[in-house]
Amino acid sequence: MILKNELQKRTDYFNDYWQKYLEIDVPENLYKAARHLPLAGGKRLRPFLVSISCESVSGDGLKSIPFGAALEIMHNFTLVHDDIMDKSKLRRNLPAVHIKYGEPTAILAGDFLFAKSFEAMHDLDVDLKTFKELEMGLIDCIIDICRGQQLDIEFENKKEISEEQYLDMIEKKTGVLFRLAARGGTIIGKGSEREINALTNYGMYLGLAFQIWDDYLDMSSDEETLGKDIGNDIRNGKKTLIAVHSIQNAGGENKKILDNIFGNLKASESDVRKVYSTFDQIGSIEYAKNTAINYNKKAKQKISILKESQAKQLLIDLVDYSIQREK
Amino acid sequence: MILKNELQKRTDYFNDYWQKYLEIDVPENLYKAARHLPLAGGKRLRPFLVSISCESVSGDGLKSIPFGAALEIMHNFTLVHDDIMDKSKLRRNLPAVHIKYGEPTAILAGDFLFAKSFEAMHDLDVDLKTFKELEMGLIDCIIDICRGQQLDIEFENKKEISEEQYLDMIEKKTGVLFRLAARGGTIIGKGSEREINALTNYGMYLGLAFQIWDDYLDMSSDEETLGKDIGNDIRNGKKTLIAVHSIQNAGGENKKILDNIFGNLKASESDVRKVYSTFDQIGSIEYAKNTAINYNKKAKQKISILKESQAKQLLIDLVDYSIQREK
Repeated sequence: MILKNELQKRTDYFNDYWQKYLEIDVPENLYKAARHLPLAGGKRLRPFLVSISCESVSGDGLKSIPFGAALEIMHNFTLVHDDIMDKSKLRRNLPAVHIKYGEPTAILAGDFLFAKSFEAMHDLDVDLKTFKELEMGLIDCIIDICRGQQLDIEFENKKEISEEQYLDMIEKKTGVLFRLAARGGTIIGKGSEREINALTNYGMYLGLAFQIWDDYLDMSSDEETLGKDIGNDIRNGKKTLIAVHSIQNAGGENKKILDNIFGNLKASESDVRKVYSTFDQIGSIEYAKNTAINYNKKAKQKISILKESQAKQLLIDLVDYSIQREK
Repeated sequence: MILKNELQKRTDYFNDYWQKYLEIDVPENLYKAARHLPLAGGKRLRPFLVSISCESVSGDGLKSIPFGAALEIMHNFTLVHDDIMDKSKLRRNLPAVHIKYGEPTAILAGDFLFAKSFEAMHDLDVDLKTFKELEMGLIDCIIDICRGQQLDIEFENKKEISEEQYLDMIEKKTGVLFRLAARGGTIIGKGSEREINALTNYGMYLGLAFQIWDDYLDMSSDEETLGKDIGNDIRNGKKTLIAVHSIQNAGGENKKILDNIFGNLKASESDVRKVYSTFDQIGSIEYAKNTAINYNKKAKQKISILKESQAKQLLIDLVDYSIQREK
């Protein structure tokens, strides 16, 4: 309950704050395209994580807001470009930017947000050393996100991916930004080396849990209402932890089903159901769920060294929330 | 002769220097795609301009190299994404990045270079205030380049564009990066306010002259050997200064030709020749040439306040070079 209230309160504040990076200018279409996703909602988990991490080491959360803005803008930039690459049509229940504004303008809108993310960095009130540390963190983060996205694309065409390769991919694609949010907030809050390390690890584990839980949610609708996305992921051979685990552990008939159908663009509806049943039968859906829960336990352990505070409680509640949410 | 030698010498030095931002890692395809254009040659005019601007106010040119790298990497990023948007197939006589590596990887390669440009900034050895001034310059520059590219795309579908609108577009698309190169070099060289202003204006005029001369060169092959690019530009209705001037000044039969053929994707070879003759007859090709020459005169005037030095001479020679080059 406290988490929900705090999340709402801080999201409202944040949504007011970052408007200044999204003001309309000419050419209008570029600005509208750039604002499309940021203003379409979103949980603002990254800025939230920045500010409560900062406060968990007795820092002033308000000082960390520009960093939260930089991360949220960067996150939105990656979504705009990812949707082009993945040919996704919808995002946050609205047409994706490239669907609404065309691909050239969507590429530009992403680039524009990328630049704006660095603009937000400049509103941080920190010394040169801290500024450079935070900004290099952001730069490394983007490079890793590009690498993770490239791996994700390449994995679709590979028959077998190890769990290690999968984890490396989501660490880059999702984990690094959560890690930087927690780490950066702690640095701005002038946490000790020990606290910075604890929050850095916390952020990564939270990010991994978050991504795996997403995979799990996407796959956990009951078989009767098997959604379009599940079908697409199965036909495209998308390497979620569930798929990776199944492919590694399937034998006999199950192996044949996966070999023939998983990654087959022409798979029928009933084929898709067979693959889904196989995932379930092998225990891969349950495996993914448990893996997410385990990462969350690790995340909580990491911050046990922090002194008690409301912010620490929010960090703990955020972990629970990340595997309770249903979307 | 001195210019040619200096350009070669500094380009060699620069090409060694910036390798460190382009080293191969995994996934290999992303890194190869990101290196494709930077390693395909290029005149390195922007880093050259940074270093001679720095030296023209008695600064140490070597100190400015990371800034030159940041600008050159940023320039290459814009080329990668522009080629996707413009559906260009060739760049520097090689397949464009998206042709060779596919569009998703090309989008990522551009994003990757974008991040690397900011990485190069971090190798600058300057104080916080200077760092922030230079970096905000870079950020504003990218935002303007996005705006300029969006305008360029939108102009193709507009019947008439004023010369003012055209100049605003190329100022954003090309001018701002030249301006920042000259301005940034002068700031790093600790030039006076007066010198910084002089070089800032010099850079913009040079950039405008450079872009208009490019338009002129593209259009100045003799009619017999009318290239494929000219045909494409005419069919796409590309608003170069030549086209803008012609459309504004055409009357009677000439106006009809432009109305019917310019921007008509299905225009025949002989139609294209008619438009070209119209451009020539109205004097628009000559007009563009003279406009470039005029901007160059202004560029030279702006730096007349600098004390004599080899670097100042190179700045002057660069102006002459920019309208003598044949590609």
